[in-house]
Amino acid sequence: MSENKSRTGTTRRSFLQGAAAVGVGAVSASAAKAQAADPLITEVQPWAQGFGDGVDETPYGLPIQYEGDVIRRNVEWLTADTVSSINFTPIHALDGTITPQGCAFERHHSGAIELKKEDYRLMVNGLVDTPLVFSYADLERFPRENHVYFCECAANSGMEWAGAQLNGAQFTHGMIHNMEYTGVPLRTLLEEAGFDTSGDVSGKWVYVEGADASSNGRSIPMEKALDDVLVAFKANGEALRKEHGYPVRLVVPGWEGNMWVKWIRRIEVLDSPVESREETSKYTDTLEDGTSRKWTWAMDAKSVVTSPSPQSPITHGKGPLVITGLAWSGRGAITRVDVSRDGGKSWETARLGKPGEKMALTRFYLDVDWDGSEMMLQSRAIDDTGYIQPTKTQLREVRGLNSIYHNNSIQTWLVRSNGEAENVEVS
Amino acid sequence: MSENKSRTGTTRRSFLQGAAAVGVGAVSASAAKAQAADPLITEVQPWAQGFGDGVDETPYGLPIQYEGDVIRRNVEWLTADTVSSINFTPIHALDGTITPQGCAFERHHSGAIELKKEDYRLMVNGLVDTPLVFSYADLERFPRENHVYFCECAANSGMEWAGAQLNGAQFTHGMIHNMEYTGVPLRTLLEEAGFDTSGDVSGKWVYVEGADASSNGRSIPMEKALDDVLVAFKANGEALRKEHGYPVRLVVPGWEGNMWVKWIRRIEVLDSPVESREETSKYTDTLEDGTSRKWTWAMDAKSVVTSPSPQSPITHGKGPLVITGLAWSGRGAITRVDVSRDGGKSWETARLGKPGEKMALTRFYLDVDWDGSEMMLQSRAIDDTGYIQPTKTQLREVRGLNSIYHNNSIQTWLVRSNGEAENVEVS
Repeated sequence: MSENKSRTGTTRRSFLQGAAAVGVGAVSASAAKAQAADPLITEVQPWAQGFGDGVDETPYGLPIQYEGDVIRRNVEWLTADTVSSINFTPIHALDGTITPQGCAFERHHSGAIELKKEDYRLMVNGLVDTPLVFSYADLERFPRENHVYFCECAANSGMEWAGAQLNGAQFTHGMIHNMEYTGVPLRTLLEEAGFDTSGDVSGKWVYVEGADASSNGRSIPMEKALDDVLVAFKANGEALRKEHGYPVRLVVPGWEGNMWVKWIRRIEVLDSPVESREETSKYTDTLEDGTSRKWTWAMDAKSVVTSPSPQSPITHGKGPLVITGLAWSGRGAITRVDVSRDGGKSWETARLGKPGEKMALTRFYLDVDWDGSEMMLQSRAIDDTGYIQPTKTQLREVRGLNSIYHNNSIQTWLVRSNGEAENVEVS
Repeated sequence: MSENKSRTGTTRRSFLQGAAAVGVGAVSASAAKAQAADPLITEVQPWAQGFGDGVDETPYGLPIQYEGDVIRRNVEWLTADTVSSINFTPIHALDGTITPQGCAFERHHSGAIELKKEDYRLMVNGLVDTPLVFSYADLERFPRENHVYFCECAANSGMEWAGAQLNGAQFTHGMIHNMEYTGVPLRTLLEEAGFDTSGDVSGKWVYVEGADASSNGRSIPMEKALDDVLVAFKANGEALRKEHGYPVRLVVPGWEGNMWVKWIRRIEVLDSPVESREETSKYTDTLEDGTSRKWTWAMDAKSVVTSPSPQSPITHGKGPLVITGLAWSGRGAITRVDVSRDGGKSWETARLGKPGEKMALTRFYLDVDWDGSEMMLQSRAIDDTGYIQPTKTQLREVRGLNSIYHNNSIQTWLVRSNGEAENVEVS
């Protein structure tokens, strides 16, 4: 408890110091927000005059009607059909780090299929002693692990390469979710089929494919397959939702979401990668000279301010303001996040909601006293490898303008004096 | 990544060693479960013959129809009306540690009310310099924290004092949930109203009440109020659901759920407790001699095997079996969980899914090779204060049989050779 106490104390002091630094007394500004209490409220409020809903009315609850805009959204022009499209997490309206399954980013290549546990089979074949087919019930008999991991589409922020395109954090950075996954290590199933994991596995690969029409096949080097990949059947404690791959999906921590194959039906051990469609014509990065980078699996350190942002404007005028956002790295844990209010000229170190965890979203906060002037809001993430999230200019110098995937550059929101925000670029 | 790797390795080795200890070769037993792979599956499976759902079909997703039994349930005879009743978490069917809001335990005293953010007000009054009324928008301007905490009803397992009553972990232990809460420390709001938190606060109390008809008022000593209590508005990243207190509830880490006042409307600073209905005629523990214990706020260390259990029988016969459950302590972090298969005669140390966190659920696993004989399954939790979860006999010796609340004794499931389980007592 003393840990919480001191953290609270520090937070509050930081808040006051930050406010003092910009020359406004935070306590008075803050107190001004709340109304003086009326000691004589004699009217019984309508919601206290009778009974509310009984427990039998919510066997499985949904958000209250007033939160009806906190939903996944897709971008109609982005793909030819909604069965091969993307549903963006409403990150502008969320806080903390966990993404509820119901509004968690999902991407399909041929739609979300419906597959009963009883019909589910997972084949492990190829360079193994004994090719095996597992039922769902079989998978439940192996030792399980739980980990909170983020899943980010390689194309997240992809529309922003050429300039500021989409007006909202949900659309620029919402191809991501963060859930507590429960599953069996892929290593366990490979060992079960007799693959020798104790020796030199370099040059070996697994090819993984899903049960949907697209199959979405991807090659994964054996070192990663044996390290931390999970064959997962629960997310945030409950069964995977249909659109997240019910009953079983692959979890490939820190690596691009396309490899997290849903409705996974087959894992083949090979001595070379397949070079499938999804890892050649798609999910490679075309450079300025026309050549392409391939095997760009890990998602580099990245961050975004989720509020204020275009879908989450400031509505309360000047004074105390909570600036918040998310940071993550596919190569490790976030160690620091900096926030700039002047388009990158100066930076302040943000407060992390909790110490960063490997390959999981980290929430950051900067509690400021806003003087009402225009801000060019940015955030930059730093991970435990020492990597610092680059500017868009820095990234373009290396990667050109032809890429779609792996845009992890710093995002800028112009916040106007009236509190409204828009997606802009700083030159 | 090396951390994950070694954990996986250790896990697997433990599993094999455990299996060897009971004299059965786990690899062959395990391999026998999976079918040999048929290399010539030529038929295209129905779910791969066309498209699934497009992303526009799931703006906010619900569990797939096949999981329709993983829902909250109430016990009809427990209370006179469903507006003053309990919805139990389906813990027998969940894994990991996070409880989705949609199936998270809830308890009302006069039903779940509907309150818009615009109509929401929180008064802080009493022994403060400046009584204040905060709107929802005001609350959003203070520095926030995120913590995963369990919320357990003091009456959880209460029906079990006199003997084994309810056949299922959902009903014996499901008055609990575990969510990532986001909110403002109560300390911050008290300071905002001018309460001096720097001096001696002993003897001071806050009285908290909700906006529903019951008001559910409770007194909290100031030391706790200033330590880690949150005025929370999000759970698992999104707005509180209506039944969890939308838009704002109190979070009182480690203490009985009745104090986690929903739709919180007032916090009054006093120099004595109120001794309200909810802390005198209710939520006190009547002892053998007719006197009652009061102010029994903290939830002592407790655990339960969630599977196998009466609602989650073993369906696969003998061989590898995952025994899993939950452990928690309102006084700190879980450091160890032991599992017994013989009704407490001998104990094995379970594997924790993650190191225990303060006042949060901890998942435990024991991976065994079941020989098909009857088991008397138990678990016992140990927290970082050194406290060991007591047997029911030990607890009765101290507390008698008149209590309803704070039954944290060891639970026993009799698992029969056919895999079915039932709630029993060991003498």
